[in-house]
Amino acid sequence: MASKLGLEITIADLERLFRWAPGGHPPPPAADAADHGGRPPVRVAYQGGRGSYCQEAAAKAFPPSSSWQRPPPLIIPCSEMEEAFAALEDGAADRAVVPAENSVDGPVPRNLDLLLRHPHICIVGELVLPVNHCLLSLPQAPRSALRRVVSHPQAISHCRDRLRALHLRVEEVASANDAARFVAENRIADTAVIGSQIAAREFGLRVLENNFQDLAGNFNRFFQLGLAGSIGAVVVEPNLDDNDNNKHKTTVAFSLERGVSDLFRAMWIFESRGVRVTRVDHRPNRSNPVRVEEREEAGEFARFDYVFVLDLDGTASDTNVEAALARLKEIAGFARVLGSYTCSLA
Amino acid sequence: MASKLGLEITIADLERLFRWAPGGHPPPPAADAADHGGRPPVRVAYQGGRGSYCQEAAAKAFPPSSSWQRPPPLIIPCSEMEEAFAALEDGAADRAVVPAENSVDGPVPRNLDLLLRHPHICIVGELVLPVNHCLLSLPQAPRSALRRVVSHPQAISHCRDRLRALHLRVEEVASANDAARFVAENRIADTAVIGSQIAAREFGLRVLENNFQDLAGNFNRFFQLGLAGSIGAVVVEPNLDDNDNNKHKTTVAFSLERGVSDLFRAMWIFESRGVRVTRVDHRPNRSNPVRVEEREEAGEFARFDYVFVLDLDGTASDTNVEAALARLKEIAGFARVLGSYTCSLA
Repeated sequence: MASKLGLEITIADLERLFRWAPGGHPPPPAADAADHGGRPPVRVAYQGGRGSYCQEAAAKAFPPSSSWQRPPPLIIPCSEMEEAFAALEDGAADRAVVPAENSVDGPVPRNLDLLLRHPHICIVGELVLPVNHCLLSLPQAPRSALRRVVSHPQAISHCRDRLRALHLRVEEVASANDAARFVAENRIADTAVIGSQIAAREFGLRVLENNFQDLAGNFNRFFQLGLAGSIGAVVVEPNLDDNDNNKHKTTVAFSLERGVSDLFRAMWIFESRGVRVTRVDHRPNRSNPVRVEEREEAGEFARFDYVFVLDLDGTASDTNVEAALARLKEIAGFARVLGSYTCSLA
Repeated sequence: MASKLGLEITIADLERLFRWAPGGHPPPPAADAADHGGRPPVRVAYQGGRGSYCQEAAAKAFPPSSSWQRPPPLIIPCSEMEEAFAALEDGAADRAVVPAENSVDGPVPRNLDLLLRHPHICIVGELVLPVNHCLLSLPQAPRSALRRVVSHPQAISHCRDRLRALHLRVEEVASANDAARFVAENRIADTAVIGSQIAAREFGLRVLENNFQDLAGNFNRFFQLGLAGSIGAVVVEPNLDDNDNNKHKTTVAFSLERGVSDLFRAMWIFESRGVRVTRVDHRPNRSNPVRVEEREEAGEFARFDYVFVLDLDGTASDTNVEAALARLKEIAGFARVLGSYTCSLA
């Protein structure tokens, strides 16, 4: 009986580890949560593999902290953005961290499309992090042994000038973190990887250079996502102080019966109430991407139809924001607050 | 001497053919232009390979036409968007056609970045075309021989429901037109390709189904580009009538010293003068992607800096547009009209 119990524990542990693996589902709250006041760990899904910049963002947003009275957060890799959304929807994760924008390359529109497709998921926080592209190599290998540098095309494009000065062969790979793991596991001495600090830590590589990027103003913006109904229920306190660098924002998505020609009118609804519009985006209205309409002077005309996405200063419960949102709903085909949250600069 | 002359002609012809090849530069105006009133052919670079939707757009915008008094246009494939821009800059092409947006998947931001980097290139026309995804196969092969369908991930995502009903294996490839050529050249009877009508014509494939996409509202938007100084000099008359479906637009790009918080003010400059803003886009300001600024209430704050891109109703020479542009320049870090052009729905 004792041996059976032992076996059961082993299987449970294996299952937990297995479900923790990249692409798998997170483990259930640990049974030994009693050490942490009985509270289960926060489960944070992120888009990307081990060693990715998004893992770095998830770890920064949810660090282990004794003040939490919780076991360390479970940081769960998801190979696809869809997987991170699914983990929230099926209750396998309490939070998800996904990339939203790079200051040099622009926004990642995919997560707006997914937010529009998942009405129960909303933005609960925003995190801006400086990009630190590191030049990584095997710890034991001498620098003179290096013959080539590999990374994702985006990272390579961020480090073009610095790479040129190295006079090494440069090769693009689909995933910088997979390349870092490959170099570490196969002890490849002639190859450096441009990757994150967390990749160095995860795979035991040496950081030859920090901040290897050409431009100083290279930042990533990430969204923290949560399930709408659970925001109050799941107590998650990220370790980012509500300090002076933080800022309250509301993101609202809506369609307009008269399309872009009403966009300014929609913006005016906010600005005229003292609510500043700080971002204007649009995505295809997938339920009805093109409208054919009659124009008095020009006959039939096909116009692309959009879902507009505005960022506003303030929270959705501010009197002015509330009044403006109520007015917007009168002219919008649909309108939905995607989130009312705090922006943090780490 | 005659043989030498003969040889010279052959080399010139070979050179012309060689430079006409995919990725190469276009031939110089043909020597026998006398048949066409002495006018050289219009050379149109497009982004994509033979058989691509962009080739279809280029052919639609510049069809052979006797009314032109010119030899047929030379349609020149460019594998990269940069190559099409370079062909304009070095005088190897008179026009370029590049994809700007798909109504289901959203904009192609790369060409805005390139337009910002190439100050002498501007938008001279816009073309909206319905997407016609065709199911293509070898003409001789029976339909029952088909075992799989291949295409670019975007085309596959547009045809997901129809593909499911076929009960065939579906495989993603990097280039649908390369796949179409491969199927044709290697006489592969078990594979259908989702591709363009022009791919069927170019490679001799059979169109099993037209409009194989799931959604009816699937349109592509293309830009026609030209070199700013040459717009008056090179007479190019696309075969699209200035009919009732056409519409005059102006696209202006600018940066704002105070960033997004001044965006509404910039839009107001146009709207208050009766100039309708029909599109609001932004791209990273690559020369200065992030600004660190002091906020009275919140200390230091890093904000992403953008180049804003607005589409306006009307031409840049309209009195109201002109006045608004002059006013915009007073509050903008830089401001540039990317083009004043006609939008055509084919």
